[in-house]
Amino acid sequence: MRTILVTGAGGFVGRSLTERLMDRGDRVVALDAQWRNAIDGPLLRHVAGPLESATVRATALDENVEGVIHLATVPGGAAEQDPAASRRVNIDAMYDLLDDLAATGTRPRFVYASSIAVLGDPLPAGGVDDATPLVPRMVYGAHKAMMEIALALESHRGSVDGVSLRLPGILARPAAPSGMKSAFMSDLFHALLAKRHFVCPVSRDATIWAQSIECCVDNFVHALDFDTSSLPPARAVTLPALRMQIGELADVIGRACGTNPALVDYECDAALEATFGAYPPLTTGAVDAAGFVHDGDIAALVARVLAHLQRS
Amino acid sequence: MRTILVTGAGGFVGRSLTERLMDRGDRVVALDAQWRNAIDGPLLRHVAGPLESATVRATALDENVEGVIHLATVPGGAAEQDPAASRRVNIDAMYDLLDDLAATGTRPRFVYASSIAVLGDPLPAGGVDDATPLVPRMVYGAHKAMMEIALALESHRGSVDGVSLRLPGILARPAAPSGMKSAFMSDLFHALLAKRHFVCPVSRDATIWAQSIECCVDNFVHALDFDTSSLPPARAVTLPALRMQIGELADVIGRACGTNPALVDYECDAALEATFGAYPPLTTGAVDAAGFVHDGDIAALVARVLAHLQRS
Repeated sequence: MRTILVTGAGGFVGRSLTERLMDRGDRVVALDAQWRNAIDGPLLRHVAGPLESATVRATALDENVEGVIHLATVPGGAAEQDPAASRRVNIDAMYDLLDDLAATGTRPRFVYASSIAVLGDPLPAGGVDDATPLVPRMVYGAHKAMMEIALALESHRGSVDGVSLRLPGILARPAAPSGMKSAFMSDLFHALLAKRHFVCPVSRDATIWAQSIECCVDNFVHALDFDTSSLPPARAVTLPALRMQIGELADVIGRACGTNPALVDYECDAALEATFGAYPPLTTGAVDAAGFVHDGDIAALVARVLAHLQRS
Repeated sequence: MRTILVTGAGGFVGRSLTERLMDRGDRVVALDAQWRNAIDGPLLRHVAGPLESATVRATALDENVEGVIHLATVPGGAAEQDPAASRRVNIDAMYDLLDDLAATGTRPRFVYASSIAVLGDPLPAGGVDDATPLVPRMVYGAHKAMMEIALALESHRGSVDGVSLRLPGILARPAAPSGMKSAFMSDLFHALLAKRHFVCPVSRDATIWAQSIECCVDNFVHALDFDTSSLPPARAVTLPALRMQIGELADVIGRACGTNPALVDYECDAALEATFGAYPPLTTGAVDAAGFVHDGDIAALVARVLAHLQRS
């Protein structure tokens, strides 16, 4: 049995991931600043409190952990509104955690939830591949890019065995406000499933990159086990994703739910579309070879998302 | 008259730069953790204390500054030995200074002394140009790379008008221990000038990139005034430098000093040579166009360095 520390375990990705790890027979130390409707189980230890607190981190690390999945974050929209909070959590607290882990001398695997925002905002129009440089524009992406570098450094120094996973849009987040500017991608699912009218803030042919939450969890679990020696020195992976038009996604969701996709109106917010609705072609050759995956096709993605929403 | 804050003003580059600024008629707020043989003058205000101290920063910023030249740093070798000190000074204190400047609302020019160590360690063998990505390997380079990203972010947000200058080897540093692994480049000057035997820790045909201290100061002064709108979004400039073999440099210094360069023995430390003696070709097209310069040729570089050593 392995013990895995999951930070941000109470969040959208964290909850699904924690459940999957326990299903695999892993023990989970589940850290989150606040718990609502806490997950429970014999393999789970809750640690409630902010990652910024040395006491909270020490409580989480008072047993050896073989792996860490670091999800805790101030998300994009919230980081832009409060850069000081983003600095405290997204930089300082993560660096403190890395320092704490270095002090244990156990060199755990460290899987970091980074973001495609490190590649630019908007993303480079010519496309993204394994060689695309870091050119973040906004607070969230800049802070994530800084900590990708810190994680590569600590891996090179032998404190941890790290990998940064740059997440595309993950579907479908809960309908509650998430601080994510990309929330419209998820809200489209909620509206069509409920047969509600939906005003989509990007145009019908806006392009997005997406993964289902199940696929995202597959990738995090894979990241705990794969051979990091195949990684480039930056130790960062832009996750494979399906690239699709939002209108095409609405049509597939409509068919799957028996809802008329004409319930969706498109009222393009130009600024939002430039950032979250103009994703260029994505090539992830080295990453595919390392065993990271997308959902296969849009129908499969939609089916997995709807199954997830019906379970939760 | 403009007021320029220089951090690390008591160091090797800081002293020459402070003197040059006063010669130009600029007022200088000269901050340094410790002062030895302090520079003085009617245009100078000393602030003594660590940049990590909020009080020290507030004292430095109790008048408006039109520009900041940020030189204060834990240097490469020292950072590698004490990563926590590097984190405190090279990341946290610099970010605090950027936050303090953001709070003034004055958007000063901010010139940051970064390093070619951000490009890798060793540098990419195929050469370096304006598109070379950030792949630091060591503590110093990683922390400098992280703060290049933070400075680009704060510039994009309008807190400061920033530019990162990546410095090559600057000649000749004082003979005292500097915490710099590249000190041998400077020690070669001191030995040949004093007609002393010198054991050079890299081979005769090791390649380095260098600038004289005068040229380096020229570039910092230029960076205070040039039009940053020509910069790429990363706002970072790999400074032009002369690329030369260390044996070739020894020959030119020998001729200029009337010293037999056979006083230099070459005993190659393979690790040091891989990092500081295998600098690849350097192309700096965009940067040359923006008015940044190297010394012209090796003879000019040596003449300027020797003139500087004889003055100081």
